[in-house]
Amino acid sequence: MNPSNLQALLTAYSVFLEEVVYPEELSIIYGHFKEHLPKLQRMREEARRRGLFNPHLPESSGGLGLRLSEFAEVSALLGKSPLGHYLCNCQAPDIGNMELLHLFGSESQKRQFLHPLERGEIRSCFSMTEPEHAGSNPVHLSTRAVRDGDSYRITGHKWFTTAADGAHFTIVMALTNPEAENPYSRASMLLVPLDTPGFELVRNIPIMGDTGSDYFSHAEVRFHDCRVPAAYLIGEEGQGFMLAQERLGPGRIHHCMRWIGIAERALEMMCRYALKRELNPGQPLAQQQSIQNWIAESAAHIRASRLMVLDTARQIEEKGAKEAKEAISTIKFFVSDMLMNTLDRAIQTHGALGITDDTLLSFWYRHERGARIYDGPDEVHKSVLARKLLKSYR
Amino acid sequence: MNPSNLQALLTAYSVFLEEVVYPEELSIIYGHFKEHLPKLQRMREEARRRGLFNPHLPESSGGLGLRLSEFAEVSALLGKSPLGHYLCNCQAPDIGNMELLHLFGSESQKRQFLHPLERGEIRSCFSMTEPEHAGSNPVHLSTRAVRDGDSYRITGHKWFTTAADGAHFTIVMALTNPEAENPYSRASMLLVPLDTPGFELVRNIPIMGDTGSDYFSHAEVRFHDCRVPAAYLIGEEGQGFMLAQERLGPGRIHHCMRWIGIAERALEMMCRYALKRELNPGQPLAQQQSIQNWIAESAAHIRASRLMVLDTARQIEEKGAKEAKEAISTIKFFVSDMLMNTLDRAIQTHGALGITDDTLLSFWYRHERGARIYDGPDEVHKSVLARKLLKSYR
Amino acid sequence: MNPSNLQALLTAYSVFLEEVVYPEELSIIYGHFKEHLPKLQRMREEARRRGLFNPHLPESSGGLGLRLSEFAEVSALLGKSPLGHYLCNCQAPDIGNMELLHLFGSESQKRQFLHPLERGEIRSCFSMTEPEHAGSNPVHLSTRAVRDGDSYRITGHKWFTTAADGAHFTIVMALTNPEAENPYSRASMLLVPLDTPGFELVRNIPIMGDTGSDYFSHAEVRFHDCRVPAAYLIGEEGQGFMLAQERLGPGRIHHCMRWIGIAERALEMMCRYALKRELNPGQPLAQQQSIQNWIAESAAHIRASRLMVLDTARQIEEKGAKEAKEAISTIKFFVSDMLMNTLDRAIQTHGALGITDDTLLSFWYRHERGARIYDGPDEVHKSVLARKLLKSYR
Amino acid sequence: MNPSNLQALLTAYSVFLEEVVYPEELSIIYGHFKEHLPKLQRMREEARRRGLFNPHLPESSGGLGLRLSEFAEVSALLGKSPLGHYLCNCQAPDIGNMELLHLFGSESQKRQFLHPLERGEIRSCFSMTEPEHAGSNPVHLSTRAVRDGDSYRITGHKWFTTAADGAHFTIVMALTNPEAENPYSRASMLLVPLDTPGFELVRNIPIMGDTGSDYFSHAEVRFHDCRVPAAYLIGEEGQGFMLAQERLGPGRIHHCMRWIGIAERALEMMCRYALKRELNPGQPLAQQQSIQNWIAESAAHIRASRLMVLDTARQIEEKGAKEAKEAISTIKFFVSDMLMNTLDRAIQTHGALGITDDTLLSFWYRHERGARIYDGPDEVHKSVLARKLLKSYR
Repeated sequence: MNPSNLQALLTAYSVFLEEVVYPEELSIIYGHFKEHLPKLQRMREEARRRGLFNPHLPESSGGLGLRLSEFAEVSALLGKSPLGHYLCNCQAPDIGNMELLHLFGSESQKRQFLHPLERGEIRSCFSMTEPEHAGSNPVHLSTRAVRDGDSYRITGHKWFTTAADGAHFTIVMALTNPEAENPYSRASMLLVPLDTPGFELVRNIPIMGDTGSDYFSHAEVRFHDCRVPAAYLIGEEGQGFMLAQERLGPGRIHHCMRWIGIAERALEMMCRYALKRELNPGQPLAQQQSIQNWIAESAAHIRASRLMVLDTARQIEEKGAKEAKEAISTIKFFVSDMLMNTLDRAIQTHGALGITDDTLLSFWYRHERGARIYDGPDEVHKSVLARKLLKSYR
Repeated sequence: MNPSNLQALLTAYSVFLEEVVYPEELSIIYGHFKEHLPKLQRMREEARRRGLFNPHLPESSGGLGLRLSEFAEVSALLGKSPLGHYLCNCQAPDIGNMELLHLFGSESQKRQFLHPLERGEIRSCFSMTEPEHAGSNPVHLSTRAVRDGDSYRITGHKWFTTAADGAHFTIVMALTNPEAENPYSRASMLLVPLDTPGFELVRNIPIMGDTGSDYFSHAEVRFHDCRVPAAYLIGEEGQGFMLAQERLGPGRIHHCMRWIGIAERALEMMCRYALKRELNPGQPLAQQQSIQNWIAESAAHIRASRLMVLDTARQIEEKGAKEAKEAISTIKFFVSDMLMNTLDRAIQTHGALGITDDTLLSFWYRHERGARIYDGPDEVHKSVLARKLLKSYR
Repeated sequence: MNPSNLQALLTAYSVFLEEVVYPEELSIIYGHFKEHLPKLQRMREEARRRGLFNPHLPESSGGLGLRLSEFAEVSALLGKSPLGHYLCNCQAPDIGNMELLHLFGSESQKRQFLHPLERGEIRSCFSMTEPEHAGSNPVHLSTRAVRDGDSYRITGHKWFTTAADGAHFTIVMALTNPEAENPYSRASMLLVPLDTPGFELVRNIPIMGDTGSDYFSHAEVRFHDCRVPAAYLIGEEGQGFMLAQERLGPGRIHHCMRWIGIAERALEMMCRYALKRELNPGQPLAQQQSIQNWIAESAAHIRASRLMVLDTARQIEEKGAKEAKEAISTIKFFVSDMLMNTLDRAIQTHGALGITDDTLLSFWYRHERGARIYDGPDEVHKSVLARKLLKSYR
Repeated sequence: MNPSNLQALLTAYSVFLEEVVYPEELSIIYGHFKEHLPKLQRMREEARRRGLFNPHLPESSGGLGLRLSEFAEVSALLGKSPLGHYLCNCQAPDIGNMELLHLFGSESQKRQFLHPLERGEIRSCFSMTEPEHAGSNPVHLSTRAVRDGDSYRITGHKWFTTAADGAHFTIVMALTNPEAENPYSRASMLLVPLDTPGFELVRNIPIMGDTGSDYFSHAEVRFHDCRVPAAYLIGEEGQGFMLAQERLGPGRIHHCMRWIGIAERALEMMCRYALKRELNPGQPLAQQQSIQNWIAESAAHIRASRLMVLDTARQIEEKGAKEAKEAISTIKFFVSDMLMNTLDRAIQTHGALGITDDTLLSFWYRHERGARIYDGPDEVHKSVLARKLLKSYR
């Protein structure tokens, strides 16, 4: 896409946010998501009408045909609202599932699972993390998928299956080859429709004060001898980790750009409030040097984050996610740290208002605390990066 | 109290926490407080039965007769549970109100308001902060109390009137002398029973995802020409700020010791979880140097905090809160910072579990974020301390 | 320059550093600079022979004709040695003086002062900061230049006139129009040959343990009624601040890229030492998670710095230094902070060795501490950035 | 000592610093120590005359008979000048050697080595760290002491033998029992007069720009088959580590209190300079909120440090250094971190002046960077503390 077209597209997204999303977002995110589904559906149709739906898909699939680095710019804009990605059908975990099925799904899997997702007719989820094992070391899994004739029978316990409530299917990571010597060859990914007998949504986990519902929820689920056709295996047996890596690479770009969008909105809120709120008549908070320091430090780290994520997106475009592994690890911990610091400063600037649910800050402060934990805690990514660097000096 | 008696008392509190409080706290704090009132009442009776009720009161008022530095030790223990202070009747804001009325209340005010509080029959609240003015500069108030014969008529808008829901009365800060030259002589404190016509509890403010109820809530309230007898004025007209300072000095000791209790419990949780959770079979998180660094840094800052707060309590005992003003400012920002850092590290150690409401960490992470804001944001206390120090070199 | 030519050039600089500079740098920087001048001269000739001299100059002036963003890449490489820029004739403050004279010098000024500098025959210095005034607010100056017929008579006291020892001339900032209403129109810049009667080099200021000499020194100087021809005025009277801004914009790119080079070398040293040093036989420091965290955090911040500085260089190329003012302020405080943190971690990794003068780290730790102070302390740049951002929301 | 006597003593030390030490310290520390020895000797005599010599010794040895926690208060005062401890004969490493010989020396060792030290007639040093081994894991040593009839023959290579230049003897840590199963039983401590044949002072190591001389130096030394009488063994063979622990426990109190003194002086300098230096006429630096934040944060951390170190000193008095091991580790990393942060802020406040050798700040910034490294780097002490805490939850 040429630069001026991209610029026009970004403007269209900004206008959509201002006109359609911002006026509704507070009541929806602090309300009951499920009850707002009809309104949300109308907003999604509006996004489609404006040509903003599916920015992440190729034109052949009804998308905008953006490169990863272009989509990243869109994603930073959409991140400014907690509803942004959802309204344009490019929300996690669906976007990751679409990418995975696009690359590795069979024709019948695409027909049955991918295309309805792309059309925005259904939602999906992804079942990887298990409460009994540290998510930071994914080779340890207990969920099993045992081949039994033309089926797999799946038994296991997962949590943080985001958005399972109301979803149509999940992709589950399960051991198919537990005896394989290489621990990275023991697991596979399988598609499981959520109406499969034996699938149980145990609960939406209360997270930082919110149980949530529908898309805004994180489920604990169980698979009780859940039987799916063998044709629901994605790729081949033992490819689970390879697929997870493929899925997570661009996924981290998505997360990071969304975080940048959040941080930019928080910085805007901080600036506006600092200008408005007075310590004494005629003396707004914005004149306080501490506030100025926070604004400057957040602005600097946001800019650094944006340049690094865009550069990483370009590396992925050029040489693939595997070759960009260290760059991806770098942005994972750098940007999540920037995000939490920015939110913290924005809250401090807002004073008592900052801890109420009268602004978006409370929502993000609570729900983005996970950013430093999911997809690998920061500490794991630091080790990955350091060990790679050290190797080059050995 | 001699040291070994104090030690025995502290042990009794610990046993109370282990036996009575810890088993119930999660279901209560993540449930609906109001629905748990009968159970809470039984727990309060148990505290009374064990001689642990009213640790803050003189023996003549049915309390334990502790000095501030002794009560501080008790307070750090009670802080280990979000219910601790409430169950022993020494919870904010009631404890501050009791101190205030004890020192400055008239005999009839004591009889009508203080003694029922001390007996644990009623609760109270405190209305100071206004949404239209920065709490960090309390000279700016809009709430007015106009003398009208034998009454005051109060009109104004307040928020963060903690625990108004279910309370019997509030103490309100209002301008009685708005034209006084000295801005610190413009306001007064008045007692207002909450069933006074014109008092409106607008809403329990949703704070970090919790609207709460009863004692666990923070209200927005309005006074619509609310008429109270002139005898409900505490002290004299124009003494509002002086009274607020008196109330806040020991109040900050209470907060700081409670924060230390929270941090100690979070550190315990961090240690236990790090020992239990394995990255690989036989390799617990506790062996990770990052985790060890966090444990050590939190332990060091908790110990520093405890020594500083106890030292400050002794300064207040010896020379009064006014003379200890800088020491009080110091602990306000040092301890709140330590608290939030410790909670953050505890959450990161717990990984995904840390952001769920399956542990206390989520509750504290959300509800103690205000610690760096209320009773004067950290930045104000740093300026107070710095200006005092600078003055000594002038 | 096309990318592959630039790559080849960068390789040539790397080889020059490895072959010519690294073997000599420790003995020179910890020795007496002046005594090493003959050897340094030979090394400069070698740089010239390899076509690496004057990377910053246009081809018409005997340079390599690089754009700012290309020179920035060269500069990061040269920064890896404290001698790098000097050996290639692009060292501060000469590079800034060359830029200034190139843009604003008269023909005769160029002939007399610029061309010998470009040929590497002489050195120069820059006299702005005064001991009596805070450098962070440059409108306050006491040095006067009074027009007297065809001359200016200059009187004043300056310090941190870097590299005055052995220099041929200085550019001095002095008040020519002290009564001008606009404080930014009061000062001018004048050329002063150092053999002018009345010029006094009071001392080389001992900085962090080093008095230094020749190029490696920072002088305190006095102008005692120093008379120079009126033709030595650069530009016009009152343009001093405008010229200073022009000089400082690209100057900050130079500094920042040099700092990045230093940080990259320090990170290399940290990695190599961590791999070599053993805590126990077979257990190198590199396995310690704390060390890995430091390596990862430094690597991330170096990468962020590099992307931001290159982006800022491109902004300056496209729209000039004035329009890029906020980007320049951002890199000033972000990169200097990154540098000092990286050096600190490198020293801690090296243990006792890190504080000796047996490595470069001690030199940089001491001599780059000024990075957060000169050209405007970080705090000033944060305010500049914050105020600009705030303005956009007014 | 009763509190008012202690107070009077502290006042006497303050007066000594103001009258005798401060006027001379800058010229001595930035000069050549050895050349100032006559003047230093006169200053030491003045300390003796005022009854301030040997505050650390029992009265029976000509000292002031202070308890550790009382001496700690004295030490914080003396730390305000780099010369303080030296002038009162309680400087490291002599103070540690005196303690060691007092507790474990034979009568003849005391007569020959301890008493002249106590009388201030000679100086000593301590040879433990070896360049070939990480100091953070002291079980790894190469220096050997082989019993040969009535002698030991010592061969090895040490560095950071502080103050060897001009010292009379050293205490060396050497392997006597390299085959012992317990690695902590392999080493012993031996006294070695520096005029013993085979002892070589290789060089005073240049540290952060200073080679230093005499007491202000850190030597690299070699023992070439150095023969000393068997009676110079301190304690018994294999007791080296036990003795080192005994020596280091109170030694860390000394260091920490000295660091507190430094930090207090730096804070004083910061306050005074901030009041004096103007950004604009009538607008001193002290009005900048950033500066106020630094002052407040440093003041808070200094106060926390002081309370923790005094509390640790009392723990050592009551139950011995071994039982106070975690408290000692805690202050080691907490106080050294506070010190470096305070010095950094003081330098930033002083701007360009802060990096010159015109104030004490440059000296401390350079020479105290080792505080986070020697006697065990911070990271080791954090692990010690964390592992002990974790053990209590196992």
